Amino acid sequence: MTEFKTLRGMRDLLPDDAGMMIYVQETARKVAKLYGYKEIITPVVESYELLTAKAGDEVRSRMFAFKDLGGRNVALRPEFTASVARLVATSMRNDPKPFRIFCMGSAYRYDEPQRGRYREFWQSDFELVGTFRPEADAEILMLTDSLCQKVGLKRFGLKVGHVGILRGILGQEKVTEKDQNAIMQLMDKKQYDDAVKLVENAGVSKKCVRTIRELVECKGKDIADVLNRIRELVKDYGNSVAAVENLRTILELVNKSGYKIDLTVDAGFARGLEYYTGMVFEIFVPDLDIALGGGGRYDKLVELFGGEPTPAVGVAHGLDRITLAMGTQIDFKVKKERTIIVVPIKEELKTEALKIARMLRDADILVEVEVMGRKVTKALEDADRRKTDYAIIVGERELKEGSVVLRDLSKRDQRIVPIEKLVDEIKR
Amino acid sequence: MTEFKTLRGMRDLLPDDAGMMIYVQETARKVAKLYGYKEIITPVVESYELLTAKAGDEVRSRMFAFKDLGGRNVALRPEFTASVARLVATSMRNDPKPFRIFCMGSAYRYDEPQRGRYREFWQSDFELVGTFRPEADAEILMLTDSLCQKVGLKRFGLKVGHVGILRGILGQEKVTEKDQNAIMQLMDKKQYDDAVKLVENAGVSKKCVRTIRELVECKGKDIADVLNRIRELVKDYGNSVAAVENLRTILELVNKSGYKIDLTVDAGFARGLEYYTGMVFEIFVPDLDIALGGGGRYDKLVELFGGEPTPAVGVAHGLDRITLAMGTQIDFKVKKERTIIVVPIKEELKTEALKIARMLRDADILVEVEVMGRKVTKALEDADRRKTDYAIIVGERELKEGSVVLRDLSKRDQRIVPIEKLVDEIKR
Repeated sequence: MTEFKTLRGMRDLLPDDAGMMIYVQETARKVAKLYGYKEIITPVVESYELLTAKAGDEVRSRMFAFKDLGGRNVALRPEFTASVARLVATSMRNDPKPFRIFCMGSAYRYDEPQRGRYREFWQSDFELVGTFRPEADAEILMLTDSLCQKVGLKRFGLKVGHVGILRGILGQEKVTEKDQNAIMQLMDKKQYDDAVKLVENAGVSKKCVRTIRELVECKGKDIADVLNRIRELVKDYGNSVAAVENLRTILELVNKSGYKIDLTVDAGFARGLEYYTGMVFEIFVPDLDIALGGGGRYDKLVELFGGEPTPAVGVAHGLDRITLAMGTQIDFKVKKERTIIVVPIKEELKTEALKIARMLRDADILVEVEVMGRKVTKALEDADRRKTDYAIIVGERELKEGSVVLRDLSKRDQRIVPIEKLVDEIKR
Repeated sequence: MTEFKTLRGMRDLLPDDAGMMIYVQETARKVAKLYGYKEIITPVVESYELLTAKAGDEVRSRMFAFKDLGGRNVALRPEFTASVARLVATSMRNDPKPFRIFCMGSAYRYDEPQRGRYREFWQSDFELVGTFRPEADAEILMLTDSLCQKVGLKRFGLKVGHVGILRGILGQEKVTEKDQNAIMQLMDKKQYDDAVKLVENAGVSKKCVRTIRELVECKGKDIADVLNRIRELVKDYGNSVAAVENLRTILELVNKSGYKIDLTVDAGFARGLEYYTGMVFEIFVPDLDIALGGGGRYDKLVELFGGEPTPAVGVAHGLDRITLAMGTQIDFKVKKERTIIVVPIKEELKTEALKIARMLRDADILVEVEVMGRKVTKALEDADRRKTDYAIIVGERELKEGSVVLRDLSKRDQRIVPIEKLVDEIKR
């Protein structure tokens, strides 16, 4: 007999874990509403070509890709942005800008499983489309802060960088886009020495190599200071200077608007996805080695999918990782709702029990009905073990007078209650 | 340039459609709570062997199956029951029975797309595990009724049958299980002549063939009458008689408990999945050719996955189809929440605008902030077109006195409101 189990890297979430995940999902949906993001649903399975168009080699090599029964090259989405950009380039192309899009669901990467890294993982995704302005970037940082706050995280921070700083240098030094992408990928993996080696091989000036070497060391929490140091380093590269100032504006907007976010600026910070063009960031907690989520600006992606040039900025929150961080930081319990079980004392009273259950549910009360045909004492023992709050015992004698026995299982006392007063009694 | 689009049979749900889908999902979750079903989350990708163990040839041939990067045979779930049964046989094997499980998500079948039939579709799934009693079957019918009622469907009915009626005959006539499965599959596809031919070829008695031929004609809404006719037909087959009486008890429980469900009994009704062993049913609406969902009893599946023999009964509701039926039966609109936009009259006031937005969101008010850098009149025109309810205009003069302009966009009037009174003013 085969022992069936989940595939490596995939998880079942049993009621407690699922309750936490659903709580986080509902919180993400609430944040989306508060910030005006409209929810959409896109497929898990998309064309391979779409999903790989600008994903970067790292993500591309870890996709769940296959041929469907019609011979199409398809894959499970490794993230949401490609699907959203597809929509922006097609069905939504004529919608007035800006628009704010929210989506939530599972995504798939064939990564080596570790704590917080699963092959099926959940994300909430926010995309603000149609504006290049720094207040849009700031909004994405702010709503990320709101989500982390609302789920109750006590310790978290955002690491922020700007793809334009490095690309500005490399572009001015005429490094090809292919080489630039490879360099950024190495940066993302924090293989700075290899990245610098690649820069050298691309035939740039000595000064450029030195600048980049110093740049990747430029990081810290004193935002103004770090940004000034970066600016001084890149002062001969116009686009890089613009990138630094863009980042400064974004972070000042966040800081001055009353969002007390623990920010770290890191000039050498890059992200694995190739499509970013501006500010990039990740959420970190001291309790976990991996980011809880991240995002950034991607101004060229919609164009790539056949749409008008459309600036956009977005974030994906890793919901599995957020629940993990909650587990280490707070004593989270899914709110337990009051539960009731209805038990008929004999077979013939089953219909009466079902009628009463229906009446209570119509009044929005959570009710289970005894479905094991057990004797009352057995059923109550079981209800007690499950921490059920009340039992309604349906007996012949009480029923003749239109009543039932209402038993408080925690207080272990009971009394006779007319059926018509049952809802009021329980809701009291 | 490739025009990127969704794969054939897959859909994007834009905000209006997604809103309806999420409303139905939230309603299903509410029904689960009211009936005591605990939510779990299982993976979309499972082992091929698990998903095909008892799915039936029809479903098996239409699965999204592939090898993962580790060379495993895997597939996208075509339904939820196999995953739930896996859990019941493994992680939950020691949990005290009964337990009630709810799950919700997307499932995948490579069907020919048509109205209401998609290759990615959404289901809510309820499983009541650990009891063979008819009140459990009745509960599954009742909660299905509750879901359809709560989403607002006006016209729907349940077609109900019992796999045990036909299997009782075929078993007693020594038809092999393989042939039985093939016969049931043809029944499911309403290819009754082919099914009867297969029965004949299985070497059964003439009388048996006649009985089955008459049986498949036995259907109707007068439950007692139809069940009596079926019972008379199958009277020489003990297990079939027991099946009829089991069905009678289930339906009487439903009828007498105050659930006014439009029921049709159909003796020739079968379902495509092989694992059913008892009562089976589907939800129908006059507006659509296809079932909105269905389910039944499966007492052998958990055993097959290595668990203790565990009776169980469940249902899967097709959420896409439920939204389609809602579209034809009721004038459903997602409840529109009051929306507000905050517009600074000049660049330097952006931070003030963001501060005010933050304050309002902290009071659970939905707020967008102008992020296009437009002039006030442009921003208000756009807000008006989007049917935004209020605009808060942040100007220098008012700000000096701690106030802003609150403009009611539908009434087209505006007044100056102190910032500290803004929340109260808007919530009034």
